[in-house]
Amino acid sequence: MDIATILGLVICFAMVILGVATSGGLGAIGSYIDPASMAITFGGAFSAVLVSESLQSFVGGFKSFALVLKTPKDNTSEMINNIIELSNVARKEGLLSLEEAAGNLEDEFLKKGILLIVDGTDPELVRAIMETELVSMDSRHKARIGFWENVASMGPAWGMIGTLVGLVNMLNNMEDPSSIGPNMAVALITTLYGSLLANWICIPVANKLKGHNETEMMQKEIMIEGLLSIQAGENPRVIEEKLKSFLAPIDRISEGEDGGDLNG
Amino acid sequence: MDIATILGLVICFAMVILGVATSGGLGAIGSYIDPASMAITFGGAFSAVLVSESLQSFVGGFKSFALVLKTPKDNTSEMINNIIELSNVARKEGLLSLEEAAGNLEDEFLKKGILLIVDGTDPELVRAIMETELVSMDSRHKARIGFWENVASMGPAWGMIGTLVGLVNMLNNMEDPSSIGPNMAVALITTLYGSLLANWICIPVANKLKGHNETEMMQKEIMIEGLLSIQAGENPRVIEEKLKSFLAPIDRISEGEDGGDLNG
Amino acid sequence: MDIATILGLVICFAMVILGVATSGGLGAIGSYIDPASMAITFGGAFSAVLVSESLQSFVGGFKSFALVLKTPKDNTSEMINNIIELSNVARKEGLLSLEEAAGNLEDEFLKKGILLIVDGTDPELVRAIMETELVSMDSRHKARIGFWENVASMGPAWGMIGTLVGLVNMLNNMEDPSSIGPNMAVALITTLYGSLLANWICIPVANKLKGHNETEMMQKEIMIEGLLSIQAGENPRVIEEKLKSFLAPIDRISEGEDGGDLNG
Amino acid sequence: MDIATILGLVICFAMVILGVATSGGLGAIGSYIDPASMAITFGGAFSAVLVSESLQSFVGGFKSFALVLKTPKDNTSEMINNIIELSNVARKEGLLSLEEAAGNLEDEFLKKGILLIVDGTDPELVRAIMETELVSMDSRHKARIGFWENVASMGPAWGMIGTLVGLVNMLNNMEDPSSIGPNMAVALITTLYGSLLANWICIPVANKLKGHNETEMMQKEIMIEGLLSIQAGENPRVIEEKLKSFLAPIDRISEGEDGGDLNG
Amino acid sequence: MDIATILGLVICFAMVILGVATSGGLGAIGSYIDPASMAITFGGAFSAVLVSESLQSFVGGFKSFALVLKTPKDNTSEMINNIIELSNVARKEGLLSLEEAAGNLEDEFLKKGILLIVDGTDPELVRAIMETELVSMDSRHKARIGFWENVASMGPAWGMIGTLVGLVNMLNNMEDPSSIGPNMAVALITTLYGSLLANWICIPVANKLKGHNETEMMQKEIMIEGLLSIQAGENPRVIEEKLKSFLAPIDRISEGEDGGDLNG
Repeated sequence: MDIATILGLVICFAMVILGVATSGGLGAIGSYIDPASMAITFGGAFSAVLVSESLQSFVGGFKSFALVLKTPKDNTSEMINNIIELSNVARKEGLLSLEEAAGNLEDEFLKKGILLIVDGTDPELVRAIMETELVSMDSRHKARIGFWENVASMGPAWGMIGTLVGLVNMLNNMEDPSSIGPNMAVALITTLYGSLLANWICIPVANKLKGHNETEMMQKEIMIEGLLSIQAGENPRVIEEKLKSFLAPIDRISEGEDGGDLNG
Repeated sequence: MDIATILGLVICFAMVILGVATSGGLGAIGSYIDPASMAITFGGAFSAVLVSESLQSFVGGFKSFALVLKTPKDNTSEMINNIIELSNVARKEGLLSLEEAAGNLEDEFLKKGILLIVDGTDPELVRAIMETELVSMDSRHKARIGFWENVASMGPAWGMIGTLVGLVNMLNNMEDPSSIGPNMAVALITTLYGSLLANWICIPVANKLKGHNETEMMQKEIMIEGLLSIQAGENPRVIEEKLKSFLAPIDRISEGEDGGDLNG
Repeated sequence: MDIATILGLVICFAMVILGVATSGGLGAIGSYIDPASMAITFGGAFSAVLVSESLQSFVGGFKSFALVLKTPKDNTSEMINNIIELSNVARKEGLLSLEEAAGNLEDEFLKKGILLIVDGTDPELVRAIMETELVSMDSRHKARIGFWENVASMGPAWGMIGTLVGLVNMLNNMEDPSSIGPNMAVALITTLYGSLLANWICIPVANKLKGHNETEMMQKEIMIEGLLSIQAGENPRVIEEKLKSFLAPIDRISEGEDGGDLNG
Repeated sequence: MDIATILGLVICFAMVILGVATSGGLGAIGSYIDPASMAITFGGAFSAVLVSESLQSFVGGFKSFALVLKTPKDNTSEMINNIIELSNVARKEGLLSLEEAAGNLEDEFLKKGILLIVDGTDPELVRAIMETELVSMDSRHKARIGFWENVASMGPAWGMIGTLVGLVNMLNNMEDPSSIGPNMAVALITTLYGSLLANWICIPVANKLKGHNETEMMQKEIMIEGLLSIQAGENPRVIEEKLKSFLAPIDRISEGEDGGDLNG
Repeated sequence: MDIATILGLVICFAMVILGVATSGGLGAIGSYIDPASMAITFGGAFSAVLVSESLQSFVGGFKSFALVLKTPKDNTSEMINNIIELSNVARKEGLLSLEEAAGNLEDEFLKKGILLIVDGTDPELVRAIMETELVSMDSRHKARIGFWENVASMGPAWGMIGTLVGLVNMLNNMEDPSSIGPNMAVALITTLYGSLLANWICIPVANKLKGHNETEMMQKEIMIEGLLSIQAGENPRVIEEKLKSFLAPIDRISEGEDGGDLNG
């Protein structure tokens, strides 16, 4: 569970309840819940997005909500240490010995790269294959992010459509002045729902997924750099120096301070 | 028929009807239908787009609506398997044997590429010709997408023009207070129409066409990669490895698990 | 005359008149015409653009309106056929024979290229000179497009300035309630004018000019490709194959079906 | 003095006065002038920009207003002729003779380039140094343009803040209905000021500076092209052909029609 | 302390107070302070950003506010002089002598580069490592800038959500006409808070951080240029010429006017 995301979602909700309660008392909460308004705003927004997706990718978009609640295993410096260890193994025992080491790796991407190296694949081809994987993964992630961005822009739009529908009706029935206020309140509720859908859920979720994607892309790029360096038989110290340049200075705690020159 | 798209379009419409019905009852539907408002919003929006198109491309823009209702034959992994089979044929029986194999291909783009290879065209020229085709196809598709994006931005604009026309008239005739409401309702209807044109039809259609185009561009790129690999006489296993990097891991079911090293 | 553009402009205007007529009857048209409102909206918008232009480019921006009414001689496939004929001439009678053939060409750009080739200019230099021409032409066209885009954004802005000026005055003079409506109507008219300036004229004109520019840039690029292929003495069939990749499949009707291998 | 810019600024101002005069008579001008509203709109907008600048760059931003009033010495074709003359000098009398010729040049950038050539600097280094100058100049100009763009977006924002402050006060004091109109008028004036700041001054100034910068960048690029051609000892006719490709066809009046082949 | 930033923040605040005081007198300040409105606007905006961050980066985003109050040590020309001195040392006493000189350097980035050179690292590797550092630093800074940009867009959004909540309640309780004004005033206050959060704090802070980042990136690029020139053993005069091209002409005061040709 990602504590920041859950905390943020909960506080946002609490703030809306607080706003309702200070405006009209907790008893007024009922007047902010209107099933028909929910149907037109959420139904309209999600259906408009459904138009532009396949059923499969629509469902995939929804499911990706679960991803933002999970803490990503974000430990880039641990991953770098793993690669450096692999480079030590390769240097001491040869590239073929990596096959066994690869068995313990959790990351499928790194594993695949190791196996390509062990197979003796041409370095140019290793880079080409790994970078195609990277680009395809990036575009799959961006499709998920795009789902939430589309809902984020459709939410307020369908909220406004609901409000216009309500206003037209209200304006056609102004004989009873006392009904004008409540009718307009109902009309406005879809705009409120649309704003909440966008600013409470969709935009934060899209931004979270973007952050996850950026971190993952950087990690994969580090892996490619590292794999090619291992294949080229570079000195583990040089590899460490190279890969740690990706980290913020405070995250760089050296693995093996004891050995070797940078160009040894 | 693309079930997601049709479902989305229908549910959106149902949501608007629901909104009308809960606001003023089903009997109020008549007050949301105003031919003059439709003329100014839809007529204005489409005519403003007509200004910036030729008649031919305007009609082509309209027609492209039909494309979003068709399910694209999206089977990228099948297409990859076809290319791998072709590479096996080429390896066993020579490049010239591809001519016959090409006869069974449905995709004109792949067919053209095969024929260029069979003709013994220089690889650099094959790549140049195929990529020019790709870029030109992409820009033709983008013209269609641009049509719907332009209508999507003109819809709300002409809806607002209609509303301003109505408001100016209403403000000039305020002697009878009881007419103010209905007059303003009519004025607002063009804004409602403009929003629906954009958010129910045009933006989803443009997004759907964008998705189609992205998928198709990726498929064509895979084809070019594959064709050039076949021409270079690469090992079918290497080609498979290369092309499957474009797919999501779950879509990768190997064709010929039984044979050959990656660099055999 | 470009029928689509003129049709679009006329229908848009008719739709506004229709809107006025259905709102308040044709007799109400007079109340939508207000010289002072025109002065502030159009005067303000165009003058604000004048600030950021030289007099010469401002006049040039205006004049470019005439371009959208002309049908561009858009016949790319005819142009490609011309280039293929030139390549046949060059192949049979030598590059020098192109000088005569160039005399009949209408396109100054193509003519210039032919003369550079006839002069025996170095291919690298031909490409450099032709591409500098292309880039400069593109940036001159974009300055014209930018003019209309700037007016398109200044129109609604000055419309709103006019409305704010009117509202402030109206709010300061509310003693006579019967004058509030008409005063607000007058205030809103500048917003209506600004919207029309942008969405009836400027945005469509800018889009039309963009379309013209894209077509012309593609044609010039085809010319450069063709010229360099002629200079390199490539086979006319190869040149045809190359240049026709720029066209949509339905526009490709071969010139000389009868002869020669692609790599003959 | 740049007549277009000054004309534009003056006409915009006249249009606002005209709008005020036709709304409420010239006597109403006083009601559009409110020092406190000016303070909050202009003070807020400029101070918010001050937050993101150093004092020095803030003052520099202000000062750059003077630049838009000056006509730039825009004569690109004269500049090209100068370079061609220099190339003739270099060809006849050697590169060293350029030192004297450089003494008469007004443009510091061109002068510096000539001196680098006379010093016998390596062509790669000349290009690197001149292009670094170009990029740095471009980013200094863009900082000035950014200043005006930031004020342009802060103007309407602080105008709205002022209006919100006024509205909140008005809504809290509605006992006297006759004060509502004038109070709201005052509240709206900050929005009017903000719109004018953006659309009368800042956006046009930013666009003007952008135009200046584009022209200057193109001129400097022509200079670099020319300098490197001179250093390479290219034929003056070739240099002319190359540099004149940057100009619109109508601006190309040849310098020395009498002499030499393009590749002589 | 950065005087411009603090001055800007203070004047903006003073302008709001001035606006309140001229609207309703200083006594009215109380009616602009509403804890519940603050909670919903600031709480909602920051929590919505928290959803898309990790706790650590959220706190880091907040902390980066302190950076805008510090004057950056912006002295690029002094830094260039340091590099030129280092190049003199290297030329006279050899690359190894740089180790001692590096001890006095404050900038960790420059120090790291010097040590890489002293270690005899391959120039290509030095460039790769230093540029990875640069790109990673840039993306860390952009994460901080993105934090403030996200809050800047969430502020007005949650301000509007607060206003909608308030309006719906007000419209449901219109029995007492005298309460409408004050209730609407309270509803509007969240919009005012949201605007202030964005335009007083977040946008200026984000712009300030962007400016800092641009300056720092340019400085680091100059360092990389300089380090590689030192390693290549270039003439200090050439290095000076190269590095000073990054500066505005008025900032270029030569270090050692006395010596050496540019290509000596």
